[in-house]
Amino acid sequence: MGQVAKTGQVDNYPGFFEVSGQMLMEKFEEHLNKFEIEIGEGEEVTKVEKAEKIFSVKTERGKEFFGKAVIVATGRDPRPLEIPGEKEFIGRGVSYCSICDAPFFQDKAVAVIGGGNSGFEAALDLTKYAKRIFIFERSDTLKADEILQEQVKREKKIQVHLNKEMKKIEGKGKVQALIYQDLKTGKTFQVPIDGVFVQIGSIPATDFLKGLCQFNEDDEIKVDSETCATSCLGLFAAGDVNNGKWKQIIIAAGEGARAALAAYEYLQRKIL
Amino acid sequence: MGQVAKTGQVDNYPGFFEVSGQMLMEKFEEHLNKFEIEIGEGEEVTKVEKAEKIFSVKTERGKEFFGKAVIVATGRDPRPLEIPGEKEFIGRGVSYCSICDAPFFQDKAVAVIGGGNSGFEAALDLTKYAKRIFIFERSDTLKADEILQEQVKREKKIQVHLNKEMKKIEGKGKVQALIYQDLKTGKTFQVPIDGVFVQIGSIPATDFLKGLCQFNEDDEIKVDSETCATSCLGLFAAGDVNNGKWKQIIIAAGEGARAALAAYEYLQRKIL
Repeated sequence: MGQVAKTGQVDNYPGFFEVSGQMLMEKFEEHLNKFEIEIGEGEEVTKVEKAEKIFSVKTERGKEFFGKAVIVATGRDPRPLEIPGEKEFIGRGVSYCSICDAPFFQDKAVAVIGGGNSGFEAALDLTKYAKRIFIFERSDTLKADEILQEQVKREKKIQVHLNKEMKKIEGKGKVQALIYQDLKTGKTFQVPIDGVFVQIGSIPATDFLKGLCQFNEDDEIKVDSETCATSCLGLFAAGDVNNGKWKQIIIAAGEGARAALAAYEYLQRKIL
Repeated sequence: MGQVAKTGQVDNYPGFFEVSGQMLMEKFEEHLNKFEIEIGEGEEVTKVEKAEKIFSVKTERGKEFFGKAVIVATGRDPRPLEIPGEKEFIGRGVSYCSICDAPFFQDKAVAVIGGGNSGFEAALDLTKYAKRIFIFERSDTLKADEILQEQVKREKKIQVHLNKEMKKIEGKGKVQALIYQDLKTGKTFQVPIDGVFVQIGSIPATDFLKGLCQFNEDDEIKVDSETCATSCLGLFAAGDVNNGKWKQIIIAAGEGARAALAAYEYLQRKIL
């Protein structure tokens, strides 16, 4: 449900054309509900451990579940800026999802951090609502596709700034200003702002797994690409959370089936 | 379009529940037609060769196409009995698809060859039309799921015979009789019959590729499961035609995306 539901339009999942990410995920949920499967929604997993060949899955509300096999399909989280003010203002001006939150910034001034495709797409989403939009990019080049760069050039509301490093988000109760440094001159600036959209990539959502299995240098779970088996017997990882070469919905869905079939086979053979 | 379109109902492709195989494939085709991709329908490929880093793809009607990369996604064909009379009566009594051809056997006597799930499903499909149905299984045990065996037991129209080896299909212009041997007694029998449904498994559709890349002992194309790359540079194979561990629509669809992305990367790097 994670990243896909936050995607405007999906064209590359076979069978659905020009479907919103939200709608596609509703279709998946509807499908899932045809089977007797309990969904523990709104219950974040904080820790997965293994003892005596049995996995324990603990959630933030203090529940604990036990199982002989576990499939992790937690996808990825937005990469945070990790600057002062970011965490405390989440939901009060700081956002990682323009599709979700752009409408809250009617006639406001907002900053988008990141000059890649997702930053440019967020800025374009925001033109429908915000009165002024700044795109800040840390490096001296933009990574967004040319077609997006051209669309942004045509929007008078959007200003693009290179070589700017974010330092701090300030405010009282909500975001009011952004402090950044110009990496060419070394000078620091403060810009009054109502919202900050952070679009600097994503990281695999694996905090709850630390120490249980092997990861690659990007913190992705290492798996066998045929079975989605991890280095920990009985633990499988499907979709964007693993070290698969490509991140696409249809590939992740195929991996879900692979992991389920592999877990089933693992349980049948009772190698526990 | 192959095997899926001949499947009665599909429940395990995420996003579609209780959809007919035919309908799902129509959705895929509709989706494909949104893009400018030429489809060479009704044009069977007879040979793929590689010379000077360029592939040549020849079709039965004598056309020839050239390309720097080729993705094979031909799936599987029904496994033939390979007995006299089988080939000549295809479409005149011999069928490999009960969903497609059962309605042609209204009030007729038909034989289904194969005691696995597909044989039992074919026999059950046929009860709506045929007046008498024989299931012939070569071995001394049935491989069909218990639930299907129970459904078949309840059908008075269906008779199940074990230890029977098919020897010959006879007729004038169309199927009229089946000759088989009882493997326990060695005796040979002739049974008057109007149709023969062959349901003894499937084989990968790779005849046109012989010699170009490596295959496993089941004639499946050997691929790297991450990229669907074969042993032949520039040649990729996705879906049930390759040596992937599991054959499911969603897994095959995921592999289609993997192969496309890998072929794209191969072309970009111009390793030709």
